[in-house]
Amino acid sequence: MKQQLIFTNDVGGALDRLVAELRPSSVYVVADSNTARLVVPRLASASEAVAGAKTVEVAAGDTNKNLESLAALWSFFNTSGATRSSLVINVGGGMVTDMGGFAAATFKRGMRFVNVPTTLLSAVDASVGGKTGINFNGCKNEVGVFAESEAAVISTVFFDTLSREEMLSGYAEMLKHGLLEDRRTFAGLLDYHPEADGDRLLDLLRASVGVKERIVSADLHEHGLRKALNLGHTAGHAFESFAMTVRQLPVPHGYAVAWGMVVELVLSKMLLGFPSDLLHSYAAYVRENYGVFDITCRDYPALLSAMSHDKKNDRSDRINFSLLADAGDVRGDSVVDSETIKAAFDIYCDLMGI
Amino acid sequence: MKQQLIFTNDVGGALDRLVAELRPSSVYVVADSNTARLVVPRLASASEAVAGAKTVEVAAGDTNKNLESLAALWSFFNTSGATRSSLVINVGGGMVTDMGGFAAATFKRGMRFVNVPTTLLSAVDASVGGKTGINFNGCKNEVGVFAESEAAVISTVFFDTLSREEMLSGYAEMLKHGLLEDRRTFAGLLDYHPEADGDRLLDLLRASVGVKERIVSADLHEHGLRKALNLGHTAGHAFESFAMTVRQLPVPHGYAVAWGMVVELVLSKMLLGFPSDLLHSYAAYVRENYGVFDITCRDYPALLSAMSHDKKNDRSDRINFSLLADAGDVRGDSVVDSETIKAAFDIYCDLMGI
Repeated sequence: MKQQLIFTNDVGGALDRLVAELRPSSVYVVADSNTARLVVPRLASASEAVAGAKTVEVAAGDTNKNLESLAALWSFFNTSGATRSSLVINVGGGMVTDMGGFAAATFKRGMRFVNVPTTLLSAVDASVGGKTGINFNGCKNEVGVFAESEAAVISTVFFDTLSREEMLSGYAEMLKHGLLEDRRTFAGLLDYHPEADGDRLLDLLRASVGVKERIVSADLHEHGLRKALNLGHTAGHAFESFAMTVRQLPVPHGYAVAWGMVVELVLSKMLLGFPSDLLHSYAAYVRENYGVFDITCRDYPALLSAMSHDKKNDRSDRINFSLLADAGDVRGDSVVDSETIKAAFDIYCDLMGI
Repeated sequence: MKQQLIFTNDVGGALDRLVAELRPSSVYVVADSNTARLVVPRLASASEAVAGAKTVEVAAGDTNKNLESLAALWSFFNTSGATRSSLVINVGGGMVTDMGGFAAATFKRGMRFVNVPTTLLSAVDASVGGKTGINFNGCKNEVGVFAESEAAVISTVFFDTLSREEMLSGYAEMLKHGLLEDRRTFAGLLDYHPEADGDRLLDLLRASVGVKERIVSADLHEHGLRKALNLGHTAGHAFESFAMTVRQLPVPHGYAVAWGMVVELVLSKMLLGFPSDLLHSYAAYVRENYGVFDITCRDYPALLSAMSHDKKNDRSDRINFSLLADAGDVRGDSVVDSETIKAAFDIYCDLMGI
């Protein structure tokens, strides 16, 4: 993996050192309307590179991670003289790092880019691992490329502006990494609440990114091992797109993953004997912190249909999951039929008290 | 280089063997309005894979290699159930292989694709080497990625529908490959006219693609060696975009490259002592077969400005060329100032009899 992971609360200093090392012909900052206001000025006062950069702003929110915003980025690069040796610094959550990374990776067939995640979710997930892209035709991340950033500069300094909801959204991915690692790591995460002690969070974050990094570096293009990282995401994406398109009440990505992991741990128990005690303590943690995503059996067909559009399926007529035989024991590519998934939804409803 | 190069006039059979080997979940054919009418039916009668494929058509012509056509391809893939294990077969000239390759390489972060070049130019150039992309904001190939096809199936069977202009346009790239190889290869090409003996063309074509393949496989991402392939293209792209945007009389890409190589061989002689006899015999061949691209000194500023937008420049304030000390002796990255380039334009006018 060529991507450097830099854990520091001196983000400005780290960026200046990176620019000195990479020697770009010019520097661009991509931010959304929130980070352009709240974060970029803080970075500019701490970093000469950011102070001297051209900043391009996109409207905040995942619905703006679309073709129009992407074309606006390309257009800004084109008209302001960006070259293939320019450097793009993406400052924001996953929406900014996904789309800014895709814009950079495709402009003149590839400029370099650096990610500065400003949310817990993007620090632990989107900013690391080389997935870039945009939503298209109502499908999440339907268009994109695998392209690694030169570096991700990861800190907790920007988390003071995050809501409880945003913190929990990021924490869901950390719970996933804990499940992929081992029982002890997972139990430690269930013992912690992300609003609590900030110092302990930085340590948990570093460990969590380490889990993802090891998996990604072994499998950049998602041929096999990396599918482990999809845990919770097949059901999670279905909840997320169902909430957005059918109910028109979007839910945070991390919440959808937290609920999706309940469904997929149920499948893991049904098909691979995943331990009941872990399933029940996880479901209790989710219910207590994330609340419940309400579904009834009348929603199952729409949820199944949303799953079959998920890009992680090899063939559009089957549904693949990454499931667990135990914490730390991933079995990729379980093909599950729709009757079994419906049964898992029933148990999900039961565990969630629906 | 993972890309297979298959030279055969049994294109249908080659495609069926590729599909049997790659085992895609579904097969797509991308064609333009001409090849959809003239070539795809011929292929469908010779190939089960093509006969069973979903065909998506884009409007012919380089001006349609744009964001709208790209979005239409993504949309077709999205609504027709394409998955990451689908296969795209691009049937056409460089416009189709560039844009179809980019659409495939970015849909769900990457489907596989195969190129079936139907023009001499795309057989010898665009279909081989992994450059994909579209034009954007009036700039050629401004957006794209490096992504290799699984295979290019190269034949001469479709050339019977090409005009003299299209044949000569492709032949310009072969002349370039000859210059990059050695004196003997180059002299052999100057002794041949592409409308002449078809069998000899297939041999010359195989040799010519071999030159490109060796260079590309040593340097997929254009860090160094591959810049040799830019010979003629810095001045050529300037002629091409000047013709399109200022004169609004587009010229064929290959013609622009043929003229651009005259300018760049003049620079090669001025700066690196490229032999006069080769320059003069090449200029005579171009004048005789390609005619003359008329310019006057009043056009120089616009041509220089078009060059500085070329993506091959590391910094927007300097102009880089790949020049030759002799046939087969490339020196990449010559930085040339605008006064020297103007002097080369003067000599170009002289050689062309302007």
